Amino acid sequence: MEKIIVENKVQQVKLLAAINDEHDGVIVELSEPMHSEDFASMLKASIVQWRKQGKRGVWIKVPIELVNLVEAAVKEGFWYHHAEPNYLMLIYWIPEGTHTLPANASHRVGIAAFVMNDKREVLVVQEKSGIFRGTGVWKFPTGVVDEGEDICVAAVREVKEETDIDTKFVEVLAFRQSHKVYFGKSDLSFICLLQPLSFEIQKQESEIEAAQWMPLDEYVAQPFVQKSEIMKYMFDLCLAKVDKNYSGFSPVSTTSNVSDENGYLYVNSQDLIKAVSSGHHIST
Amino acid sequence: MEKIIVENKVQQVKLLAAINDEHDGVIVELSEPMHSEDFASMLKASIVQWRKQGKRGVWIKVPIELVNLVEAAVKEGFWYHHAEPNYLMLIYWIPEGTHTLPANASHRVGIAAFVMNDKREVLVVQEKSGIFRGTGVWKFPTGVVDEGEDICVAAVREVKEETDIDTKFVEVLAFRQSHKVYFGKSDLSFICLLQPLSFEIQKQESEIEAAQWMPLDEYVAQPFVQKSEIMKYMFDLCLAKVDKNYSGFSPVSTTSNVSDENGYLYVNSQDLIKAVSSGHHIST
Repeated sequence: MEKIIVENKVQQVKLLAAINDEHDGVIVELSEPMHSEDFASMLKASIVQWRKQGKRGVWIKVPIELVNLVEAAVKEGFWYHHAEPNYLMLIYWIPEGTHTLPANASHRVGIAAFVMNDKREVLVVQEKSGIFRGTGVWKFPTGVVDEGEDICVAAVREVKEETDIDTKFVEVLAFRQSHKVYFGKSDLSFICLLQPLSFEIQKQESEIEAAQWMPLDEYVAQPFVQKSEIMKYMFDLCLAKVDKNYSGFSPVSTTSNVSDENGYLYVNSQDLIKAVSSGHHIST
Repeated sequence: MEKIIVENKVQQVKLLAAINDEHDGVIVELSEPMHSEDFASMLKASIVQWRKQGKRGVWIKVPIELVNLVEAAVKEGFWYHHAEPNYLMLIYWIPEGTHTLPANASHRVGIAAFVMNDKREVLVVQEKSGIFRGTGVWKFPTGVVDEGEDICVAAVREVKEETDIDTKFVEVLAFRQSHKVYFGKSDLSFICLLQPLSFEIQKQESEIEAAQWMPLDEYVAQPFVQKSEIMKYMFDLCLAKVDKNYSGFSPVSTTSNVSDENGYLYVNSQDLIKAVSSGHHIST
């Protein structure tokens, strides 16, 4: 008798609206304000239901306005997957054993821009904050690639923002992966060659202390460059590109019919064109 | 009179322990359980103090065990910066105007592994879940690069996990950036060439339906490859590498004396060696 009453009670509780994902999981997007006690009951009942249905991962997206519901979900066994300024994504794994839910975004992506004019002067800046503040170091313009932004677009944008110089993206000369640079996150930095289209510098007030076209020899003579294995290496790359036919990766616009999204593929176009023109393009 | 009382009250409230960051901000790492009301009072008083000190960004790291404190911080004007399974990072900007706090990690990083044996057979798998489940599609082993893991290490690990084949990392043939693949996050996928060191396949039970060495022609003849511009492009790249001296980016271990961290720089070593050996290595 007691069992039936319990079941009735469970059935009377409203369930959370959820959509199915491609991995036998469910996704809940909360949007309506509610009391945390009501939410806790709905969540409990919903998990019972999902378990019966053989569901595995449960995702709950909680907008920051509904922050009052977060504690209830954590008490139910949920943990954090990721957060953005306006929401928190909570996850739960119904089956026994270790979950197979995908990890959070793990990398921040940055660019460093190598821009040289016809006089072999390179575009350099001094930054107002960060580790180089007040050191007098002249460095390539750098910046962070925004979410959803192409690397080749970000490089042009950062140079424009910091120095007002217009550029055309040419190629990625190299990239570097480093770890634990940022709350335990990793970093991928792309060293990009850009061709200047304008030459009159107007520095950004908020972040940039100074900007100039600097003779290549002066740039490389800086102790900051000379003392750093990686800076010297990067500089050799830039020179190899300018003087010696070094080939980096250039962006090719592609469409994927698998995922319906567009994106750039970065390849050694110089070598690929050579290979294809020598008659080996078997796949078309 | 009333004002003095208020000020005394504020001064009696314990302040949150904080450390300074490099950008005129403060970082608070909560660890002791407390009531949310006590936390709210301490937080209010601390903000008054930080404002007096000219502080700008405020970071509060809240372990998931202290989830009861999150709502109080949001009510005080904090928002989410990022979250990991066991904590939530909240931020606040004290000055007037737009904040200049760095963005959250924005990219997930993946690898696809091109592994070919001496008989021109390529290592392929069928996956148990995801969009290719049940489609009969044979694809290169793929996987996600873990936080803190090198791309060249991740590629070798994924091939080993999925097929038990030991490999040596050779180079990155190309990479692709796509957007909004994953809760609005972007994705960077590195197509990697690996040299097989063993040949006996033992497939992973949990994720892999089947694995085999497949003749190159059979792989490329699949409709999944033929119908996809990007898959064909990637395949041409692989062939250009195998048959035509295509040069990708290979990893060079580097040390940065600026940040004291190690990492790999991925460069076109073939072209760089040519450039340097032709006598232009001016920077050492």
